[in-house]
Amino acid sequence: MKLATLKNGSRDGRLLVVSRDLRRAVEAPEDVASTLQAALDDWDNVAPRLAELSDALNAGKAAGAFDLDVRQLHSPLPRAYQWVDGSAYINHVKLVRMARNAEIPESLWTDPLMYQGASDCFIGPTDPIYAVSEDWGIDFEGEIAVITGDVPMGATPEQCRDCIRLIVLVNDVSLRNLIPDELAKGFGFVQSKPASAFSPVAVTPDELGDAWDGSRVRLPLTVHLNGEKFGEPMAGDEMVFDFAQLISHVAKTRPLVAGSIVGAGTVSNPDENGGPGKPISEGGVGYSCLAEVRMVEKILYGEIRTPFMRFGDRVRIEMFDKDGNSIFGAIDQEVVRYEGRT
Amino acid sequence: MKLATLKNGSRDGRLLVVSRDLRRAVEAPEDVASTLQAALDDWDNVAPRLAELSDALNAGKAAGAFDLDVRQLHSPLPRAYQWVDGSAYINHVKLVRMARNAEIPESLWTDPLMYQGASDCFIGPTDPIYAVSEDWGIDFEGEIAVITGDVPMGATPEQCRDCIRLIVLVNDVSLRNLIPDELAKGFGFVQSKPASAFSPVAVTPDELGDAWDGSRVRLPLTVHLNGEKFGEPMAGDEMVFDFAQLISHVAKTRPLVAGSIVGAGTVSNPDENGGPGKPISEGGVGYSCLAEVRMVEKILYGEIRTPFMRFGDRVRIEMFDKDGNSIFGAIDQEVVRYEGRT
Repeated sequence: MKLATLKNGSRDGRLLVVSRDLRRAVEAPEDVASTLQAALDDWDNVAPRLAELSDALNAGKAAGAFDLDVRQLHSPLPRAYQWVDGSAYINHVKLVRMARNAEIPESLWTDPLMYQGASDCFIGPTDPIYAVSEDWGIDFEGEIAVITGDVPMGATPEQCRDCIRLIVLVNDVSLRNLIPDELAKGFGFVQSKPASAFSPVAVTPDELGDAWDGSRVRLPLTVHLNGEKFGEPMAGDEMVFDFAQLISHVAKTRPLVAGSIVGAGTVSNPDENGGPGKPISEGGVGYSCLAEVRMVEKILYGEIRTPFMRFGDRVRIEMFDKDGNSIFGAIDQEVVRYEGRT
Repeated sequence: MKLATLKNGSRDGRLLVVSRDLRRAVEAPEDVASTLQAALDDWDNVAPRLAELSDALNAGKAAGAFDLDVRQLHSPLPRAYQWVDGSAYINHVKLVRMARNAEIPESLWTDPLMYQGASDCFIGPTDPIYAVSEDWGIDFEGEIAVITGDVPMGATPEQCRDCIRLIVLVNDVSLRNLIPDELAKGFGFVQSKPASAFSPVAVTPDELGDAWDGSRVRLPLTVHLNGEKFGEPMAGDEMVFDFAQLISHVAKTRPLVAGSIVGAGTVSNPDENGGPGKPISEGGVGYSCLAEVRMVEKILYGEIRTPFMRFGDRVRIEMFDKDGNSIFGAIDQEVVRYEGRT
């Protein structure tokens, strides 16, 4: 099934069940779950009832169904108790570290690189990305994440695999010019990773069919920048750590609560020779963030040609199934100058 | 007023108003707020009604009041949307970095050092600290934190000061032997800072009287290890960045949602000569974590004498007013070997 959250003026919005084709939606009954967090808190009881409603909706038989306007949607969890993001695509790590002249850790292939992100205040999938200054080096990062159930401390990857409840896309907004100073302090990202946005809908793994292998999504992630295709790297093959491994890494010393969002980092593919890949314009699969293409331009042309995002720029992040249908709806955001209280 | 959360089998527990002397409590009426997060979500409406109940309780006139057993309490927010912790006591930063042979950043005095912590699954103030192995280097960190209301993006320190709703104590449990590898990766703490514990009650700033200067608590923090006094450093004077500055630092690029917990880091005092201070046994004010005393022992005696926490060890963290009354109740925790699902 596909789930979404309608903006209704409340902090957590209103849980919707959305049709497979993303055209129709229906509110989950109050006595089932009024918010996605409430559904996740009591998943074993709630999920079967939402699945029934989903079946009725897809059959055109759900009472109260209405046409879905994705612009009315918040991120599936408008605020969450946890957002922890990995860097499972090593090609991304290599490129952004080359760009910063930073050391590439030896443990890259054996020990997942992860950071604790802010989860208190996500932005909606079509909300503006507010920034005070273009000098912050505004970048997007197209990613896939899972939303978990409760995960006990010490859970093995095999146990963590069974804790995956939902899958979403992410725009992990990054302020590249603020990153070097923060990483130099060693404590991770506070100012340089502001609020992330998530796809209009979160889907259960079965919605992906055989593109879901139990712990990876084997489809390309499609990113457009200002209407032009910017990347369509494969999300599955180059994911060195799968979701089960990432969750298990976090759970080593503590449990995770239902509704934790665990990301796999910017989707990125090396080329067939193990090199850093090529931009779409050079016949490559492109990238899911600007930092990577900028580094590759430096390698290819000796100069950076692509600026970071400017006010008015738009990024669109989505994923299509083998028949060309959008699975999650599109994250589609414009960068807007922040001029005061939002 | 003083607020607490009763464990009642639900994920967020039940909001209590607690008497000033911590002896009596009463449930907040359902139609006011059933959880602390609900109260924070609608603070302007809820707080005056809780304050009335608090006045009645302190006057011995609250219907339904009962004797408080702190062992029944969860952390005031059992799960929160944000826990972001600073290192505002520079003496702590110097000592733990000396212990790791790590560089001390030049920006230490001008740019707050902060990290995004896990907030999904706190432990209660008298709950065990579970660890799989003593080899993790189990340590406590005695801290003070504030719980905020909504903070707009770009809020100045002056604006942030008005967003402080509640004050709590923290045990920011730290696994010292896991920290160096994580910091080497540059992405902050994921495994090395497991679930934190908070004091039995959260208090409004007025409960501190003139010990609250608007952005700092000017009282000593008292820590006992296995029944012996381990530290009583002053929390106010050596706090280089106050809470308003810390919140403003986080809000530079994004808003913070009500219920965000912002910590000031391990309370630590240099001595009168600017040196690293002395253990209690040497006539000093001691420390709020083991890592510091271990470094000081190395300096004083040429060897580390204090081990990290072992299974069965207990730490107690509390704060007393000028008349010797406990303000927040005590965090009082035993380290217990983790042997499976909790």
